Amino acid sequence: MARLVSMNLILLKHDDFIAEDRVRLSGRRMEHIRTIHRAEVDTTLRVGRINGKMGLGMITRIDSDFVELDVDLTQPPPERLPVTLLLALPRPKMLRRVLQSVTSLGVKQIYLISTHRVEKSFWLSPLLDSENLHEQLLFGLEQARDTFLPEVHLRKLFKPFVEDELPELIKGTKALVAHPGSEESPRLEPGLATTLAVGPEGGFIPYEVDKLVDCGFTAFSLGERILRVETAVPVLLAKVYSI
Amino acid sequence: MARLVSMNLILLKHDDFIAEDRVRLSGRRMEHIRTIHRAEVDTTLRVGRINGKMGLGMITRIDSDFVELDVDLTQPPPERLPVTLLLALPRPKMLRRVLQSVTSLGVKQIYLISTHRVEKSFWLSPLLDSENLHEQLLFGLEQARDTFLPEVHLRKLFKPFVEDELPELIKGTKALVAHPGSEESPRLEPGLATTLAVGPEGGFIPYEVDKLVDCGFTAFSLGERILRVETAVPVLLAKVYSI
Repeated sequence: MARLVSMNLILLKHDDFIAEDRVRLSGRRMEHIRTIHRAEVDTTLRVGRINGKMGLGMITRIDSDFVELDVDLTQPPPERLPVTLLLALPRPKMLRRVLQSVTSLGVKQIYLISTHRVEKSFWLSPLLDSENLHEQLLFGLEQARDTFLPEVHLRKLFKPFVEDELPELIKGTKALVAHPGSEESPRLEPGLATTLAVGPEGGFIPYEVDKLVDCGFTAFSLGERILRVETAVPVLLAKVYSI
Repeated sequence: MARLVSMNLILLKHDDFIAEDRVRLSGRRMEHIRTIHRAEVDTTLRVGRINGKMGLGMITRIDSDFVELDVDLTQPPPERLPVTLLLALPRPKMLRRVLQSVTSLGVKQIYLISTHRVEKSFWLSPLLDSENLHEQLLFGLEQARDTFLPEVHLRKLFKPFVEDELPELIKGTKALVAHPGSEESPRLEPGLATTLAVGPEGGFIPYEVDKLVDCGFTAFSLGERILRVETAVPVLLAKVYSI
């Protein structure tokens, strides 16, 4: 059951294609098709090409090591959210969930940043290896039925990132920083491109909020309640966009 | 760090009070105060009485087995969300997170229900023991700085619940059922009392949606994306209320 829903869409890679409209799958996806869908030849499944279109795949062959499907990809993936998310690096367990969650919501630009209250050890997590990050993003896409991979950028130094890179990044976007205790309520402009900065557990320190405000961000609070990152981010995205 | 933020508020039970304005704490809360706050006599901490007011507590005594605080409780807890949440019982790992998350968001009435796609084994989880449920709720309150405990109701039979109990429950509320693929978009009335039904991974079956609609629910979809329960619920609550 858990695995079924983690693969509402079977994602196809470039290398899977053995002809223009035929793929051969092995490994996790083959196992999934076999055990969860209990699929036979002629069974039809939802499939999508990474960074490409979605559609249906019909099983044409089941072998001990692979399955083959004829695919018909005509449907565009769902709309992306026009948001760039700056996220203070969470501890690995939460990072995994947050990456899957924001990917499923349609975020395509994710910056994981260092702040004073990010534990240095978090940067040593194997989860940050590009292969492991990639896997979390795939889980999020499979869940949401999307094909377009987010980009994840790691920025281990706060000050150079904010001073040298961020001014360019936020150009043409509404830049917001979630900061409990801020006076201002968010001025939300649904559909507008947004840059959204979310602090670590314990929050940004005042220096960091000041730097972001100097850069052009507006600090705002979601209210009295202190939310965990994994709860706050979906709430924030739902507020900014008509999800 | 992780534990710090899981206790943004130290919750006080009836039995902790050794005088009208003095408490004695041991166990998890004492450990937390000692190790995370590295507290000494005269240190001031945020405290709140379960189902009561919040305020400050000043440490007056630190012993090997307990700490004592003088407390001054004058502040009301944050507003509750006027929502009754019906949630198809998730698998235990997710239930833990969802309970903490919805508690932190201010939900006070939670019905965990059976549906066709809820695995029967989920009902055997020790997490459903009232003590363990209680603990998850406390974590959510500590996180959000709230004192008012949600009520969790277990309903293992879908049909009797919907036919015999639900009509009374939804009286005077806007009743919504989240159902991917529904045509209708939600008619949201911010601030209004709401009953919100959220299905299991894989969704409600058509029979169940029909029963809910017969009962007075409106089915609506959040869009093309299929979200996990832990992501969908914060999004839904943010849409219905001005969190």
